[in-house]
Amino acid sequence: METPDARALPSWKQKAYSIIFESDTPAGRSFDIALLWAILLSVVVVMLESVRSINAQYGPYLRVVEWVFTGAFMLEYLARLIVVRRPLTYALSLLGIIDFMALAPTLISLLVAGSQYLLVIRTLRLLRVFRIFKLGHFVGEGEFIVRALKASRFKILVFLTAVLTLVVVIGTLMYVVEGGKNGFTSIPKSIYWAIVTLTTVGYGDISPVTVLGQTLASVLMILGYAIIAVPTGIVSAQMASPQSTPPTYKQVICHVCQATEHRPEAEFCWRCGEKL
Amino acid sequence: METPDARALPSWKQKAYSIIFESDTPAGRSFDIALLWAILLSVVVVMLESVRSINAQYGPYLRVVEWVFTGAFMLEYLARLIVVRRPLTYALSLLGIIDFMALAPTLISLLVAGSQYLLVIRTLRLLRVFRIFKLGHFVGEGEFIVRALKASRFKILVFLTAVLTLVVVIGTLMYVVEGGKNGFTSIPKSIYWAIVTLTTVGYGDISPVTVLGQTLASVLMILGYAIIAVPTGIVSAQMASPQSTPPTYKQVICHVCQATEHRPEAEFCWRCGEKL
Amino acid sequence: METPDARALPSWKQKAYSIIFESDTPAGRSFDIALLWAILLSVVVVMLESVRSINAQYGPYLRVVEWVFTGAFMLEYLARLIVVRRPLTYALSLLGIIDFMALAPTLISLLVAGSQYLLVIRTLRLLRVFRIFKLGHFVGEGEFIVRALKASRFKILVFLTAVLTLVVVIGTLMYVVEGGKNGFTSIPKSIYWAIVTLTTVGYGDISPVTVLGQTLASVLMILGYAIIAVPTGIVSAQMASPQSTPPTYKQVICHVCQATEHRPEAEFCWRCGEKL
Amino acid sequence: METPDARALPSWKQKAYSIIFESDTPAGRSFDIALLWAILLSVVVVMLESVRSINAQYGPYLRVVEWVFTGAFMLEYLARLIVVRRPLTYALSLLGIIDFMALAPTLISLLVAGSQYLLVIRTLRLLRVFRIFKLGHFVGEGEFIVRALKASRFKILVFLTAVLTLVVVIGTLMYVVEGGKNGFTSIPKSIYWAIVTLTTVGYGDISPVTVLGQTLASVLMILGYAIIAVPTGIVSAQMASPQSTPPTYKQVICHVCQATEHRPEAEFCWRCGEKL
Repeated sequence: METPDARALPSWKQKAYSIIFESDTPAGRSFDIALLWAILLSVVVVMLESVRSINAQYGPYLRVVEWVFTGAFMLEYLARLIVVRRPLTYALSLLGIIDFMALAPTLISLLVAGSQYLLVIRTLRLLRVFRIFKLGHFVGEGEFIVRALKASRFKILVFLTAVLTLVVVIGTLMYVVEGGKNGFTSIPKSIYWAIVTLTTVGYGDISPVTVLGQTLASVLMILGYAIIAVPTGIVSAQMASPQSTPPTYKQVICHVCQATEHRPEAEFCWRCGEKL
Repeated sequence: METPDARALPSWKQKAYSIIFESDTPAGRSFDIALLWAILLSVVVVMLESVRSINAQYGPYLRVVEWVFTGAFMLEYLARLIVVRRPLTYALSLLGIIDFMALAPTLISLLVAGSQYLLVIRTLRLLRVFRIFKLGHFVGEGEFIVRALKASRFKILVFLTAVLTLVVVIGTLMYVVEGGKNGFTSIPKSIYWAIVTLTTVGYGDISPVTVLGQTLASVLMILGYAIIAVPTGIVSAQMASPQSTPPTYKQVICHVCQATEHRPEAEFCWRCGEKL
Repeated sequence: METPDARALPSWKQKAYSIIFESDTPAGRSFDIALLWAILLSVVVVMLESVRSINAQYGPYLRVVEWVFTGAFMLEYLARLIVVRRPLTYALSLLGIIDFMALAPTLISLLVAGSQYLLVIRTLRLLRVFRIFKLGHFVGEGEFIVRALKASRFKILVFLTAVLTLVVVIGTLMYVVEGGKNGFTSIPKSIYWAIVTLTTVGYGDISPVTVLGQTLASVLMILGYAIIAVPTGIVSAQMASPQSTPPTYKQVICHVCQATEHRPEAEFCWRCGEKL
Repeated sequence: METPDARALPSWKQKAYSIIFESDTPAGRSFDIALLWAILLSVVVVMLESVRSINAQYGPYLRVVEWVFTGAFMLEYLARLIVVRRPLTYALSLLGIIDFMALAPTLISLLVAGSQYLLVIRTLRLLRVFRIFKLGHFVGEGEFIVRALKASRFKILVFLTAVLTLVVVIGTLMYVVEGGKNGFTSIPKSIYWAIVTLTTVGYGDISPVTVLGQTLASVLMILGYAIIAVPTGIVSAQMASPQSTPPTYKQVICHVCQATEHRPEAEFCWRCGEKL
């Protein structure tokens, strides 16, 4: 990974940048690892807070810890804004938005009780782990999966449309057949049941009782069993196809927006324009 | 998309045709979008009507709205019949039948209470969305899926026959093993259980209790787990095979029967003969 | 299909053979279709007999019908033995054994009550439908599936061994973790639960309650979700591989043992030696 | 299989080695088959012991049998250590560790009650069956599966990371949406529910009741239904790819560490250095 472009930056900013945004100096690496642990701990704290017995005993302490973490992350967020060359680009990039959303719930919880639980969105920040430990390889694999899904997105959308139509029609039929009893109390609820059945989840909170209902349910189940072959076939065929092999891109990860796969000769990020 | 053949049509008919059947003039587009919203709203109204608490409060209003929608769709259906060059071809095409079926339940509900819920079949009309928003690409992808399924239809039928036989035999065995108790009260019910299990839906409304029954159920589950590889393999192999790549057809969508994939030099629809 | 070899057969035997074993004369076809209906009806009768309310009312009639069918099938079985060139070959072929097993349960039911339900094994005889309606194509497709499964049988066996070992180990761990409570009352029962979970059936008749148990269950579920990729991958890869394309065999079906895929120049069945 | 290198071994050791570690002499084969049966029986004994009704009646006898088996396996383990050329290599190889772990639980059960159930880990020793019956072919197939999984391990890890993040975020949302009621009593429990749902297991011990909750659950189910295509696609594509065909190795199985796939000209095991 090349050193970041530092022409216009004062030297303290340059140093702070390399600590906060990069992970190839010892200081930068330590910062990133500390950050990962802080995120992980803060998520665990939020989870523990939701467990009634633990909350009853340690609630106040947990809330203090939560505010400390949020304070720290807020400082970190400000530091990122100050240090980065293009603050707005960072703030509006996917990473920047996630970084901000990881702060918001604590503040909102002052107004709306319970919203602090949404802090678990911080888990998304843990995905940085791939960058910190030089797991560019992983990022590449992730991009492979995403590319295969993208290439088959139309097929998958068409498939989902067909599934949704099927579920609406069969759900309604079941409502009529079971006569609004046995849990099939309305069409939306019957559609919910149809989704539970077609996806082979099968909670059993609602299940048909009449002979005709069980017959119709059997048809839906076998359909669901056979239909699952379609998305699987789409993705398999896509992944096995020769054009799914990625062209040889430069596997450098942009510090600001985490974009990879730059052209071999690229000097600037293709997504946000940051110097690579 | 070429302008429709209009040699013999009077100019008002020609204009109405372009509004009702096409979507490349501003008026045609507005008509189609209004239609989509009307269909969506009418389906929502039917669904709400089935929710007891809402029906108790707003039932009469919802029924009025439903009749208004049905009236509007009836006028639309008549307009289509008048305006199209070959009314019978349209009425007997898949689209025409769906358009008609979207009207029938309201009328039948005058005789048979509850049949108005079948109006949700109107959802099928929403599939027009692909045409309206020039999503011919989607239609193409849909045809790809359908073609792959068609090419493997014999294999899938053989697979389903084997699955049904398996389910009948194991369902009966379970009936004998569990001795008609624990929910396995008859052979048809035990077959229903076998389908629930083989497809990995697993409601749990019926589940084996005896040791022998649970052993047999385990065998069936592992079979179901392994057997799902078969349809998936069939479809994957089909989709990955070179001959599944579609030849280069002209992606024009017939206004009457929605057929796509005309030969590049085609001037008339291969399915209904309408001028493209 | 060529006419059967009839050198040594008296003419009445020859005629009976063409009616009973073949389906290309009008008489043969009528016989086969009548047989299919008889099988289907007899299976339905057995199923109805198992439904308590129907049995209470029509039980005696159903049992009479059942005996009539069994008598007819017994005569048919004898006729087959008399008419075929090599009775023993037929009796010991897969088809012959199924034909016999379709008779046995009624006789055994005189000694062991309830065994008549095993008559549903007659469903297997329905698979003849493929031959009667000249669905040789289907038989070919079936052989394709069977061939792919055969080619991957070692891989599937290894996979099943791994799955069984996993299920035994995790089932036992759950028994220890849940402390013999919450339905995990013994190791075999816990193994049954593990199978229900790994295969994603998930009845819910037994489900973990302790925190550690739910964690372990989560691991097992995600394993099951990922592991299902293995058999699917095996079969998909096998079906997509070029050598899975069948060589061009002669698609004649042997009248005695139902074998297909004879060498193009074959005059005798490769499995039972019957003249093709 | 070649005779083991015996230069430095006294003749009794050489003979014992061929009996205990090999299975190509009649004595060696008998020893191995007896061992398999002993392992199988000892596992069955442990399982039976966990069934309350059986334990109440035969408990003391079963415990005696268990100790006899453990004693025999202990002697066998010691014999292996004495007889093998490199005892430490054997003790630290995967096989050696499993052999040891199959002994430990009985000893630990003197201190911690209940730990004897962990003896089922002996099942792992049954995997020797592949070697004893010259099922080297199976080992090769197993290695094929393992190789395909290894080659796709990064993709699968990325996929699992994405799944875990999804499950944490949706689980928390459900906790907020269902308001800590209907079984969603804490975030960890809600995450457990999300895993049960995404993997399509669907016990039904926890299931959403509010309209918003059921809607969110429907989204998760359809996601789970579509997402399963990803690991399947990965493994299918890997297995179908040409480089997944194994190079032609010598299929000799090392007696000490069970390694296979030695180079054709190899005379020593590539993993533990034992003479082949």
